[in-house]
Amino acid sequence: MWRLYQFPLCPFSRKVRLLLGEKGVAYDLIRESPWEGQDAFLDLNPAGQTPVMVEEEKGVVLIDSQAICEYFEETVEKLPLINGSAAGRAEVRRLTAWADQIFYRDVVAPLLEERMKKRLVHRAPPDGGRLREAMRNANTHMDYMDYLLDHRSWLAGGTMSLADIAVAAQLSVADYLGGIDWAGHEPVKRWYSALKSRPSFRPLLSERMEVIMPPDYYEKPDF
Amino acid sequence: MWRLYQFPLCPFSRKVRLLLGEKGVAYDLIRESPWEGQDAFLDLNPAGQTPVMVEEEKGVVLIDSQAICEYFEETVEKLPLINGSAAGRAEVRRLTAWADQIFYRDVVAPLLEERMKKRLVHRAPPDGGRLREAMRNANTHMDYMDYLLDHRSWLAGGTMSLADIAVAAQLSVADYLGGIDWAGHEPVKRWYSALKSRPSFRPLLSERMEVIMPPDYYEKPDF
Repeated sequence: MWRLYQFPLCPFSRKVRLLLGEKGVAYDLIRESPWEGQDAFLDLNPAGQTPVMVEEEKGVVLIDSQAICEYFEETVEKLPLINGSAAGRAEVRRLTAWADQIFYRDVVAPLLEERMKKRLVHRAPPDGGRLREAMRNANTHMDYMDYLLDHRSWLAGGTMSLADIAVAAQLSVADYLGGIDWAGHEPVKRWYSALKSRPSFRPLLSERMEVIMPPDYYEKPDF
Repeated sequence: MWRLYQFPLCPFSRKVRLLLGEKGVAYDLIRESPWEGQDAFLDLNPAGQTPVMVEEEKGVVLIDSQAICEYFEETVEKLPLINGSAAGRAEVRRLTAWADQIFYRDVVAPLLEERMKKRLVHRAPPDGGRLREAMRNANTHMDYMDYLLDHRSWLAGGTMSLADIAVAAQLSVADYLGGIDWAGHEPVKRWYSALKSRPSFRPLLSERMEVIMPPDYYEKPDF
């Protein structure tokens, strides 16, 4: 059985979990708080980041959310998520990288720092200016997603792909942390509502991170 | 013919160029300085980052260095660089992500900011403390590479892969900017010397970024 090292608000672990859910791969969750820098975890992944996946019987250790997703895309045939022509797959990977790097850097990383780490680790109040900037960035990035979804059924094209999963994973953490203003983003809202209703998404939405509570509407597909 | 939008010290463009060189794909270089935020470039890539590749006749635009590398890995058979078993390919992608994200964040991004952007854009002196921290980080990361190369011929295993290319691309930019102290890193030095001698690497090493000059030894395979 696969084990997945993660914490509930890790957007990259959520990306992996959504893909595993869609592909029907079973796994056990292992709670890991990378900011604690536990030696046993650093031995597993010197970069000190979640997610990490381990299959002890096969002797396989997988590190980095994209490497993990590509691994299961290559080894599990069910529901291809990096799909289409070579150019189509490049578009899936472009938007996946946009979620993992740009949306994370501009929105999710500052929200996690100000609303989670400062509370759990530093016992300090959040920086209001940084929170407002993250929310402004979220708004700009959702304008871009609205634009894409005005032209396509899913973010990267006509079918659901890893791009939808990666963006929804980031967005769901930002939403949990109260960083998303949904007003004026009807296309993104419709798209996200459809994803929230999927069986792969339900378990993630029902989990809570200690001390930090999401907004009331967070779990509802109709919000 | 493919066009590649880049600037000489973009480590991600170097990664793509090394892969294209190894695979024998021809392309024209287009100079782009993403920090200038040119409208035409932002129309091409809303994320405003190099590299971008365009093949106008085919109507294909490729964005994000990893999406570009995966595209050519899928479409050009010569010299597989994401190679081996599924677990082996995951190891290649793990170390490629380590180069692109961790080594870049800890070493190359601060060096580019302090030694290139402050000079070209802000006309400000570099922050000595940040430079020293980047160099300390480089040393720590090269210790890890020494460890890998004590156990393997190449970074991800027995054959050259995209991991070697991605790490060498980052390292070459850090070296250009005087951020690498080679003393005490014999395994990395031997590995890098072998890569520097390859025909794919020679054109990159002979290019210069305006105003900023590399150390004397930068271009030499024997340094």
